[in-house]
Amino acid sequence: MSGDRLIYLPLGGAGEIGMNAYVYGYGPQDKERLIVVDLGVTFPDMDGTPGVDLIMPDITWLEERKDRIEGIFITHAHEDHIGAVGHLQSRLGGIPVHARAFTANLARRKLEEYGVVEPQAVTTASAWPEMIEAGPFKVGFAPISHSIPESAGLVIDTPAGRVVHSGDFKTDPTPVIGEPFDPVMWGEIAKGGVKALVCDSTNVFSPHEGRSELSIGPEIEQLMSSASGMVVATTFASNVARLKTLAEAAQRAGRSICLLGRAMRRMVEAAVETGILTDFPSTIAPEDAVQIPRENVMLLVTGSQGERRAASAQLAQGKYNGIELKEGDTFLFSSKTIPGNERGVIRIMNQLSEKGVEVIDDSSGRYHVSGHANRPDLQKMHQIIRPQILVPMHGEHRHLREHTKLGEEGGLQSILAVNGTMVDLTGNAPRVAEFIETGRTYLDGSVQVGALDGIVRDRIRMALNGHVTVTLIIDEEGEPLGEPWCEIMGLAETGVSRASLVEVLEEDLNQYLMRAGKKTLADDDALEKELRTITRRTAQGEIGKKPEVTVVISRLA
Amino acid sequence: MSGDRLIYLPLGGAGEIGMNAYVYGYGPQDKERLIVVDLGVTFPDMDGTPGVDLIMPDITWLEERKDRIEGIFITHAHEDHIGAVGHLQSRLGGIPVHARAFTANLARRKLEEYGVVEPQAVTTASAWPEMIEAGPFKVGFAPISHSIPESAGLVIDTPAGRVVHSGDFKTDPTPVIGEPFDPVMWGEIAKGGVKALVCDSTNVFSPHEGRSELSIGPEIEQLMSSASGMVVATTFASNVARLKTLAEAAQRAGRSICLLGRAMRRMVEAAVETGILTDFPSTIAPEDAVQIPRENVMLLVTGSQGERRAASAQLAQGKYNGIELKEGDTFLFSSKTIPGNERGVIRIMNQLSEKGVEVIDDSSGRYHVSGHANRPDLQKMHQIIRPQILVPMHGEHRHLREHTKLGEEGGLQSILAVNGTMVDLTGNAPRVAEFIETGRTYLDGSVQVGALDGIVRDRIRMALNGHVTVTLIIDEEGEPLGEPWCEIMGLAETGVSRASLVEVLEEDLNQYLMRAGKKTLADDDALEKELRTITRRTAQGEIGKKPEVTVVISRLA
Repeated sequence: MSGDRLIYLPLGGAGEIGMNAYVYGYGPQDKERLIVVDLGVTFPDMDGTPGVDLIMPDITWLEERKDRIEGIFITHAHEDHIGAVGHLQSRLGGIPVHARAFTANLARRKLEEYGVVEPQAVTTASAWPEMIEAGPFKVGFAPISHSIPESAGLVIDTPAGRVVHSGDFKTDPTPVIGEPFDPVMWGEIAKGGVKALVCDSTNVFSPHEGRSELSIGPEIEQLMSSASGMVVATTFASNVARLKTLAEAAQRAGRSICLLGRAMRRMVEAAVETGILTDFPSTIAPEDAVQIPRENVMLLVTGSQGERRAASAQLAQGKYNGIELKEGDTFLFSSKTIPGNERGVIRIMNQLSEKGVEVIDDSSGRYHVSGHANRPDLQKMHQIIRPQILVPMHGEHRHLREHTKLGEEGGLQSILAVNGTMVDLTGNAPRVAEFIETGRTYLDGSVQVGALDGIVRDRIRMALNGHVTVTLIIDEEGEPLGEPWCEIMGLAETGVSRASLVEVLEEDLNQYLMRAGKKTLADDDALEKELRTITRRTAQGEIGKKPEVTVVISRLA
Repeated sequence: MSGDRLIYLPLGGAGEIGMNAYVYGYGPQDKERLIVVDLGVTFPDMDGTPGVDLIMPDITWLEERKDRIEGIFITHAHEDHIGAVGHLQSRLGGIPVHARAFTANLARRKLEEYGVVEPQAVTTASAWPEMIEAGPFKVGFAPISHSIPESAGLVIDTPAGRVVHSGDFKTDPTPVIGEPFDPVMWGEIAKGGVKALVCDSTNVFSPHEGRSELSIGPEIEQLMSSASGMVVATTFASNVARLKTLAEAAQRAGRSICLLGRAMRRMVEAAVETGILTDFPSTIAPEDAVQIPRENVMLLVTGSQGERRAASAQLAQGKYNGIELKEGDTFLFSSKTIPGNERGVIRIMNQLSEKGVEVIDDSSGRYHVSGHANRPDLQKMHQIIRPQILVPMHGEHRHLREHTKLGEEGGLQSILAVNGTMVDLTGNAPRVAEFIETGRTYLDGSVQVGALDGIVRDRIRMALNGHVTVTLIIDEEGEPLGEPWCEIMGLAETGVSRASLVEVLEEDLNQYLMRAGKKTLADDDALEKELRTITRRTAQGEIGKKPEVTVVISRLA
């Protein structure tokens, strides 16, 4: 065994919040047997990824080693941990996916939707202390509190020692649904010594101890009973504890509950099916909700992040499922706005304001608690596990850096490893073994494209610069047949000369062609380049923009 | 005079934060003499306005009445109040612009840059109690504290009474630079009774009294002296008080000051020229900054909002003016991130983290104070002015609504008037007189285009859907000459069938053309429509996207 090593390799999630994908390996160098922990997605935006549907980790490295992979282990059912399973599992040769019941239930629903793999591809795992053998690894799902039921930290036993992979977690003793954070259990897990704690970094900048999910129940109930009209509450559908808190508060305030949005209904179904949600108040259909007095209704809706097609956005704009909000209604964001989503959320708030709806957000801190361990909570976890090595994960660079510093302040050997950094954990100190080229894969429509393929770059350029199509026909004698033809898209029709941009472009191109020599006219590449240059230069002069140009030269040969 | 009326009409700024433009009118209906208060811009983003350079109010209504305009009054030199003057003044017939010295200085610099109007077009106004006659109006610039020097609230006297237009303001008794908020002066202004207070709403959701600029000096000094490496501080260049606070703290900490970024140098120049900044520490050039020990340098840089080309972004990415940041340096955001700018700011923070630079932001509240009046400060202003009517301005709909409620809670008659709402202030109660069509004008390259012209919409569509050019030549007999030709931009090259997308498209289009009848082939519109439909349908099947399509049919006639 002397040549064997234990490696850790983040392919996503280390250097960003979202798109979690981590690899562990054990064995002789370059022959390690591998396990994958989480295969998540992150979401596109107009700034960098217009038109993209989902962003997934680039798994080329894994794909080239798929015969060495023993299994995929999913810590919990958030999209940034599970969302890429359906899209990528087949590329890895249909390796078994392990997850606890609730996560497995949702994974199966997702996979069925995409039709990518069979439901039996997901194995339901029991909770720690049961462990699953996967080559040289034994993996246990140790319950840990988070903002979705049945989250697990993974206990990964290897011949080189035990690794604790925290997954996303908070140290909530009363999480309403799901297992409380159990310091005794984690203490026992740590008793024999832990090689490495690979640990969530999301909230490392939050200075105060995290509050419990239980603490917001009374606040929400107070709000529900004092509100005069209809109450609409939105949160992440996967936050089943919050759904329960909201629903029970509504019930106690004499309100019937109506679920709006596909994800909301799916999540409640999954939680009921897996026995997690046992006493959820009965719900009513939208068509019934409009029949009873507004003060007796609470809508529980999707779209807390301002997503354009979700229930929140549609209610803010007009009707949804026959329900329309009115002056005097109350809309509660029982959620935090993820950085980058502010514009969408603010748009909804203003549309609601226009309708006279009272909007209440998280700014008071009374209606939402985070699902991640804050700075003092992280310190608590460090102290319980007392690992030989701390490896911060799930964070942007600044979070990982801060978490590394926090570990070092607490006397822990800490290493900052971003995506692509293969860390050798075998020895007494962590060692960077290698840098792997990593990146992102876009789901673009129905195809997967590489982030560096240039496809999205071209789309961004068209968005910034507009587009001109130039067509030219060259006759059998090698002379232009008629004049070149231009069509514009996304550009002003008239420029500074007050003439039609298209006409000015065609005129300038024609002037050039009349002067152009036989040799240039015979050379497609040279001609195309010239026509493009003239088009861009003329447009710059006329409208101050250099458009993207498609030149089509047809030769009648 | 019985038929005369006093009207208020926001063309920008009421229903948004930014792009301020307000009109007041007095006289017989539809013959009112008009004044314009502020002509600001707002900034584009990829979500809704890719490729746009600036967003300005649509001034069509004013343009059609330009012979009735008596003057343009600029409250202060922030871009969202002054930024459109250069672009729009000529469309209004070169009406005189009035502003206080510092604002006028900056306005002239801007105008010179654009070459749009002559420097003398800007008239320097003295402070209240001096007043400027403008038709039936008398307008006084009453000093008020804000985050830029020489801000003014306008005292607008009309035959129907006095209007106080607050401009942007805070109630800071010790603003470091610029006049403190003067409750005595405002009390005197209000003494004879105020018809209407038209009032900044930006911070109506901030529950606590605003803090003074003076309070952050010691905090910043502490930071500067305890930092070991170079310190870089960024804030809005126009926040001259902050520049002074930062520079003096640096000086006391034994650091030489180096200004980076054009706006930073321009702003300090303007402040010195107008005598506002009298004892600013001397600065050093970038080439000197690299010659002295890092702990003796503070860079004061532009780009606090993450702007891609500003000094902050460039320092975060690599070198700027020969200066490169290193492990152990400190970067201070002495600024708040404006909602919507988070992505850009976070990008910089992470790049700095990668360099090992300590990043300190506003989250502790120690290094920044807002320039706007918070909720209790607004109440204070209401109480001082005791207007007959409160008209909240400068805010999104939710801010205006909340401010209206706040006024009503305090016993003030309040009216929510968004852009385009002409309010008749003549009587005892405000009355909506008319709704004017308003909108936005984009500066797109060098031309002004309407927000609804469809130009930017087409660019967004290309960004989301990609683009296909289809060209087809029809011969003298009305038959296709050869096969149709496709070029793609921003689309995956291969789709689900694993064949080239272009080839599949051309094949499907050709199949259609072989079946197409003479009649269709002779009809450009019908043919174009069919070719577009087939292209979109085939692309949808191959890659799951429906691209934008430009069809060019050339007929050899």
